[in-house]
Amino acid sequence: MLNELRKDYLLNRWVVIATHRKRRPTDFVKKDAVAESVDKSSCPFCPGNERMTPPAVLVYLRDEETVAKKRDTDGVRHTDWLIRCVPNLFSAFSPPKNGEELESDKAIGHHEVLVESPNHAEHPSVARASQLVHVVNGYVDRLRELSSKPYVKYVSIFRNHRLEAGASLSHAHSQIIAMPIIPTIVNEELMASRKLSKEHGECAFCDILRREKRGPRFICENQDFVAFASWAGINPFEFWIMPKNHQGTLLTLKSKAVEGLAEILKTCLSGLKSLLNDPPYNYGFHIAPDEETSKFYHWHLEVYPKLSTWAGFEKSTGMYMNVVPPEDAAQSLKGAIDGQ
Amino acid sequence: MLNELRKDYLLNRWVVIATHRKRRPTDFVKKDAVAESVDKSSCPFCPGNERMTPPAVLVYLRDEETVAKKRDTDGVRHTDWLIRCVPNLFSAFSPPKNGEELESDKAIGHHEVLVESPNHAEHPSVARASQLVHVVNGYVDRLRELSSKPYVKYVSIFRNHRLEAGASLSHAHSQIIAMPIIPTIVNEELMASRKLSKEHGECAFCDILRREKRGPRFICENQDFVAFASWAGINPFEFWIMPKNHQGTLLTLKSKAVEGLAEILKTCLSGLKSLLNDPPYNYGFHIAPDEETSKFYHWHLEVYPKLSTWAGFEKSTGMYMNVVPPEDAAQSLKGAIDGQ
Repeated sequence: MLNELRKDYLLNRWVVIATHRKRRPTDFVKKDAVAESVDKSSCPFCPGNERMTPPAVLVYLRDEETVAKKRDTDGVRHTDWLIRCVPNLFSAFSPPKNGEELESDKAIGHHEVLVESPNHAEHPSVARASQLVHVVNGYVDRLRELSSKPYVKYVSIFRNHRLEAGASLSHAHSQIIAMPIIPTIVNEELMASRKLSKEHGECAFCDILRREKRGPRFICENQDFVAFASWAGINPFEFWIMPKNHQGTLLTLKSKAVEGLAEILKTCLSGLKSLLNDPPYNYGFHIAPDEETSKFYHWHLEVYPKLSTWAGFEKSTGMYMNVVPPEDAAQSLKGAIDGQ
Repeated sequence: MLNELRKDYLLNRWVVIATHRKRRPTDFVKKDAVAESVDKSSCPFCPGNERMTPPAVLVYLRDEETVAKKRDTDGVRHTDWLIRCVPNLFSAFSPPKNGEELESDKAIGHHEVLVESPNHAEHPSVARASQLVHVVNGYVDRLRELSSKPYVKYVSIFRNHRLEAGASLSHAHSQIIAMPIIPTIVNEELMASRKLSKEHGECAFCDILRREKRGPRFICENQDFVAFASWAGINPFEFWIMPKNHQGTLLTLKSKAVEGLAEILKTCLSGLKSLLNDPPYNYGFHIAPDEETSKFYHWHLEVYPKLSTWAGFEKSTGMYMNVVPPEDAAQSLKGAIDGQ
């Protein structure tokens, strides 16, 4: 039986799907995966160590019955927080100095860390629903503020889980990067979806969603969201979470939808955790950079389990191999979720 | 100081170059890197174990004074070989069966392993010059045969070094994949170089070469080749090797140039080895897929040391961060080479 060659929904990106020598979930389970060691006294994201980070640009404080949004100032660190967002000490993008001319070859922007919980190990797979709601609200708040800056063209929100997936600190956290250009992959998706929506009079992602909602790659859904394994996923067990209603960006999320996103995120990531023994993964939001593109672009979250190594073939060709057919991945994830 | 944002010579690919918090070579040296363990009796690529692989599609035999090219047949395995090329047992692409209709969604093609030496650890950084000449000749012979098949649109030749870079077997070997499409990255380079050569009346790579040969990213050269750190390399210590004369593909390599390529490959890879304690790396050839594109495309070899982890940012945006400015990488590699 020959392997299958699939092209991404929108990108000019090809993947060989191993229908021929496919692998089962158990092939990926690390039997000896151990919890990462934690010394809370030296973790810069644990409560009490707020001084180890720059002042927060956003803190949610438990303020009796309301959640209060604050910033640290240089002399003050708030301590009784729910989530806090701080500039990354090892920043890839930096804000322009006052009066500095904006040069196109400078990495101008922002690079922030969103600490998702005062509890070191409260990762989304095990988080309290109420805590994940704060995390999603934190994403939206930072997205709103960073998007409003004149030198910011795109805001990337992503998460690295475990050291093998690039998380150098094990305390639950996400990262937010605001940059002066629209990144390659989003740009290519934008161009393709603009073209397709002109041709078909409908958002290309709405069309994808309708097909995936009822097909062999469907994983789960709730009132506002659907999770499915993407047709040409380039990572084993890759899956996407997409809002059911057309929405270009997270900025228009209603509070019920925030709860729905928190819920489906937890459901899927805890399914992934139980299926593959808490594997390393990355996730990243894809969002429309402005109002105009919101008309034909549909935000979504892509989750990439890190279970294989991209090597000479992938790096020199931009093509990929996936040894777990997305249909099988969806079946396994669905089973793991239903069994919980 | 702000980091620098660079766009690739031809690709719509951006990288943040860490001029701000750059890293030195010693930051990457694994002090405890140990030789990978070898059990030669179980290595399918060691002499005597030829039965552990499918029959070779190409063997160079030491035949008194000449090098003879042969194939194994199903019943026979040649044993006194210099290099041998065999079908990959875990093949991503497979040839069509006789009479089978070619379907565009099938991964039709070939996937081969070129065993670079009978000596398990004769990697290019330490190989005899004469042996590396056989390896390059082997690449060219397979490229010629595979390119001639009607269902093959592109042949990718690449090498993974060490387990961390995806080499599941430690015996010195390369891989060759013949595929039914032109891969994404090569395709994008082709389109850009076609456009640029129309505009400027010259191959875009010839122009790159002229600039890099005399600039801060130059590493070394011999009569036929130049090595340089690429302007917007997405890997720390990434470098490219390019023929000085315009050449679309390896198929027109003269025998003196084969020797020149073998020599500069060894020089650069042994420099990399001594600088960073034999780090994992991948390399891949980029070649023009046919005669027409050879006019404006210039083949080259890209070498990607594997010293960082691509995480949520890279995977969701297609943008990269490189913590070693290419100018610094070139300086360090040059120093390591000159000091040998």
